[in-house]
Amino acid sequence: MNFSDRLGKAIKEKNNPSVLGLDPKLEYIPESIKEKCRQQVDNAFQAAARSILEFNKRLIDATCDIIPAIKPQVAYYEMYGIEGLWALEETIAYGRQKGLIVIADGKRNDIGPTAEAYSMAFLGKTDIFGKACRAFNADALTVNAYLGIDGIKPFIGDCMNENKGIFVLVKTSNPSSGQLQDMKLEDGRRVYEMMADLVREWGEPLIGENGYSSIGAVVGATYPEQLKELRKRMPNAWILVPGYGAQGGTAQDVAHAFDKNGLGAIVNASRSLMCAYKLERWKGQFTHEEFAEAARAEAIRMRDDILSAL
Amino acid sequence: MNFSDRLGKAIKEKNNPSVLGLDPKLEYIPESIKEKCRQQVDNAFQAAARSILEFNKRLIDATCDIIPAIKPQVAYYEMYGIEGLWALEETIAYGRQKGLIVIADGKRNDIGPTAEAYSMAFLGKTDIFGKACRAFNADALTVNAYLGIDGIKPFIGDCMNENKGIFVLVKTSNPSSGQLQDMKLEDGRRVYEMMADLVREWGEPLIGENGYSSIGAVVGATYPEQLKELRKRMPNAWILVPGYGAQGGTAQDVAHAFDKNGLGAIVNASRSLMCAYKLERWKGQFTHEEFAEAARAEAIRMRDDILSAL
Repeated sequence: MNFSDRLGKAIKEKNNPSVLGLDPKLEYIPESIKEKCRQQVDNAFQAAARSILEFNKRLIDATCDIIPAIKPQVAYYEMYGIEGLWALEETIAYGRQKGLIVIADGKRNDIGPTAEAYSMAFLGKTDIFGKACRAFNADALTVNAYLGIDGIKPFIGDCMNENKGIFVLVKTSNPSSGQLQDMKLEDGRRVYEMMADLVREWGEPLIGENGYSSIGAVVGATYPEQLKELRKRMPNAWILVPGYGAQGGTAQDVAHAFDKNGLGAIVNASRSLMCAYKLERWKGQFTHEEFAEAARAEAIRMRDDILSAL
Repeated sequence: MNFSDRLGKAIKEKNNPSVLGLDPKLEYIPESIKEKCRQQVDNAFQAAARSILEFNKRLIDATCDIIPAIKPQVAYYEMYGIEGLWALEETIAYGRQKGLIVIADGKRNDIGPTAEAYSMAFLGKTDIFGKACRAFNADALTVNAYLGIDGIKPFIGDCMNENKGIFVLVKTSNPSSGQLQDMKLEDGRRVYEMMADLVREWGEPLIGENGYSSIGAVVGATYPEQLKELRKRMPNAWILVPGYGAQGGTAQDVAHAFDKNGLGAIVNASRSLMCAYKLERWKGQFTHEEFAEAARAEAIRMRDDILSAL
């Protein structure tokens, strides 16, 4: 089954278009986990990586019956070096083992041959001494298309051959996303609209049975008007929507990303799930040690919040 | 000393503005190295990573008295998983130990807090249990500014505080780079020109004693006209020029990236140095086993080729 249909099936089974963003920082992790890991190993990077992995596993365990997908943000693993990347690899494997769709958020980009290497790393296979091996083995990857189609083609190849997916940055959630993305072109389109047109075109050969393509787009919840416009402009693209929760996007904002049947989008929340125990909303109900239970409560609330707005 | 001045000093000392691109593929590595590594370890990823590291070290040993900088392309390490990233970490450390400037070619990009994590990973420090640790510890990183200034600010912070550098993608060397980058804006500028204006602006607070900033740009040798124009448009930006050699750029093409004093640019070659033994030019003079000697001969030829065109 292609990525788009796998994603659609997972969302329908759980009746939830949410994604658990796993952007773990050590400060989010309770002392008990960190203390245990520091006693197990001397090396600080190793202890950090073990702490992150246990934190992630407990979040996955607490939410995997409710949430269809996880999105580890690669940067938060790279900052802990190769040990951190070990935690990423293990997190991806654990998520997949629990039946979750795993979206590696790496925003990778480069010229053709190098994009091919990135695609092998996250979506495809690497030939090692004649044997096809998988490095990070995610289901999908976020990519940046500043370099145009030949930096995207290798990923599309793995989407086709390996039933994987990509989400191309179109309109990002950050305050300065307009600096380039909102610039108006001579032909009247804005840069993000032009990017949306490319995503639509690139995705056409990969449309699944549910009408959506394995080539999706990233559009931030923090720009609800553009989200509305882009939903129409890319009728076959899954929209991965960051910016709900901690970044300020509401259920009403993200509702624009969905079609009439409540399909076509997935909404990511990272900090508001990982650190749900800290939210005003749950004040006094969960200790730091109960972060996973808090994440579950918040995941249910988030699901119901989004569904009620559709 | 800030990054710009360090880079300028290294180039002057060796009278060579070349960069050795380390984009190692297993097929580039002689059987003797691979066989030895496969006998040392059972795990295929580990054997691949050891092979890559030995290949890189021999290339560095053979050229470090001639070439001021290396540019490992992160994708080619990620494709070999965490073992590959171990080889990256070791390659960076080895390069720095040999006195080389190390530019990690990762084209990283994300929203502010995540860009901060990438910057910690490659340029700055990660706080681990109260101790500041370095993950990949390069001297500079290539970045993609599709997300605008708040995705770039954290890197600029580390450029200031840690004497590091970044190279922002402006006009890339690949055939489809124009698809977005050449689009004309309403105000008459092309997207790459607008990006160049941002690089100029962002770089102003970081101009070193040599007149160049630690915020540089990437402009491909495959677009000599644009290179000429961009040299003028970003008078204080170091230009990292990929595309010489295997991608088709000539010394005459790259000459446009330099100022009147022969400063302001560094020219990368990857395949043509790593696989110099295969070049028509050196036919019959080097075996595959002599790849490092071949790389040295080609590095000298490349240096003289570029210097003669300035």
